[in-house]
Amino acid sequence: MATGEYNRDQRYISTRIAADGPYPVEAGRYRLVVSRACPWANRAIIVRRLLGLEDVLSMGVAGPTHDERSWTFDLDPGGRDPVLGIERLQEAFLKRFPDYDKGITVPAIVDVPSGAVVTNDFAQITLDLSLEWAAFHRPGAPLLYPPELRAEIDEVNAVVFADVNNGVYRAGFASSQEAYEKAYHRLFDRLDWLSARLADRRYLVGDTITEADVRLFTTLARFDAVYHGHFKCNRSKLTEMPVLWAYARDLFQTPGFGDTIDFVQIKQHYYQVHRTINPSGIIPAGPDLSGWLTPHGRESLGGRPFGDGTPPVRAV
Amino acid sequence: MATGEYNRDQRYISTRIAADGPYPVEAGRYRLVVSRACPWANRAIIVRRLLGLEDVLSMGVAGPTHDERSWTFDLDPGGRDPVLGIERLQEAFLKRFPDYDKGITVPAIVDVPSGAVVTNDFAQITLDLSLEWAAFHRPGAPLLYPPELRAEIDEVNAVVFADVNNGVYRAGFASSQEAYEKAYHRLFDRLDWLSARLADRRYLVGDTITEADVRLFTTLARFDAVYHGHFKCNRSKLTEMPVLWAYARDLFQTPGFGDTIDFVQIKQHYYQVHRTINPSGIIPAGPDLSGWLTPHGRESLGGRPFGDGTPPVRAV
Repeated sequence: MATGEYNRDQRYISTRIAADGPYPVEAGRYRLVVSRACPWANRAIIVRRLLGLEDVLSMGVAGPTHDERSWTFDLDPGGRDPVLGIERLQEAFLKRFPDYDKGITVPAIVDVPSGAVVTNDFAQITLDLSLEWAAFHRPGAPLLYPPELRAEIDEVNAVVFADVNNGVYRAGFASSQEAYEKAYHRLFDRLDWLSARLADRRYLVGDTITEADVRLFTTLARFDAVYHGHFKCNRSKLTEMPVLWAYARDLFQTPGFGDTIDFVQIKQHYYQVHRTINPSGIIPAGPDLSGWLTPHGRESLGGRPFGDGTPPVRAV
Repeated sequence: MATGEYNRDQRYISTRIAADGPYPVEAGRYRLVVSRACPWANRAIIVRRLLGLEDVLSMGVAGPTHDERSWTFDLDPGGRDPVLGIERLQEAFLKRFPDYDKGITVPAIVDVPSGAVVTNDFAQITLDLSLEWAAFHRPGAPLLYPPELRAEIDEVNAVVFADVNNGVYRAGFASSQEAYEKAYHRLFDRLDWLSARLADRRYLVGDTITEADVRLFTTLARFDAVYHGHFKCNRSKLTEMPVLWAYARDLFQTPGFGDTIDFVQIKQHYYQVHRTINPSGIIPAGPDLSGWLTPHGRESLGGRPFGDGTPPVRAV
């Protein structure tokens, strides 16, 4: 590892909610805790909505900013999550592990009866929503992780995670010029690769939306609003990368994607929480985001967003 | 003044080099000290070159970074300006005023025999290069401040200074959200006004380059490289404002303008000196600057860059 390189602590609580475990899949038993600001939580928000799990898996929303210890429910009346009755997500982690000393992260799934967190393993959470929770999917739910495409989805996800999803953090949190530039070039090389891949195909894998698109989307949605300036990912804006910008708009305009995005909370989170990068805490008034709803022209590439399924029908 | 507003100290040394003063205009007597990073100094570099004053007014170039006290000649062999023999520009200020306690700024003009600074009044310096130094202008030097256009140039300069040249600093150095947003909106409102003004006229005042274009150009040249991200002037990049971007490219490609720009030193200066804004000192690798040399299409608006004069003929 180069000096000054950012290394994400990936020791998550890897307990799974699964048919055969101590935490079986069960309607109404768990609560998904997210923040609208966080790209990792955003994945779970999108997948839950696409699959129509709103009635079986409730959602608690932490505010966009947090202190060093925990995300907090400061958006809720009285500052408490109305179902879990806690002020700080940390309480659910400590209920499970009294000595828990790693990051208090979202997304997290909490077991409502015990108040204890089950998992915050964001990469597994969305896959399990597709796989383990299948019995509860709405009619017409899309197949986001279809068996025949899993190998290819996993392959794409791996490079997108390393170079893009986590790559923007590696650029932004680098503490040496060398480490920053390494991350910057990895990021933009991968974005060029993605542009080439997406030039003549509408989605990353197959001809429908999949888990791979969800994962890329949540980073692209934050690119110009945050990563471009705050994390110095500034070779170009997303709006200056024509293929990726059209791809991102296409997804943004697909029910279940753009309707989960809150640009205000996204900017609040990054610019106010990361004081080592932005000491003033001042939140940029830009960029102009009106372009997200402009025509993208990607329909001409074919593809069927929901495959044999249908778009979500519930209000956000 | 709103809380947290940035207020530039404008108490410069206002002594003028003029025929009737203690510092008369004289070939070879003075040294213009600049930094290629600084937009205020950049004006003087451009005007000196356009007017062909290289042989009568030598130029010392301080490095892009400096500490709290002074610009330094760290680019020169031994770290000393070869003509003035000093390491820090501060020495020339103290030679003139032993108790000088205001900013050590560039551009500054130093009297070589005494080693004392004469002036650092950047706004007056370029006007005097046009007016007081006229006898030394090269044949074919353009009229940058022609008598019949002075009122209009002054008027444009006043709003461009307040809202754009200094406006980007007011945004970047604001210490409250309110002061920042006020500066941001003033800036982009003025850029919109400039876009409208320049939509059907090639230059800001009259049909040739003038002092007004020089002053706007040095800010526009730094916009995407620095002000967009570092100073949070991010409604849009210059490259996303079609009229201003074409106008800026037109000037950049005009001899005497783009050939004075050093994007590397510009980025080094802002990102390394302003640690309160960028604690890590890491310099963004972007943006992609290759667009500066693309066709701008502004010739079709008419205008004659150098009027009855000619472009500079000396090497940079």
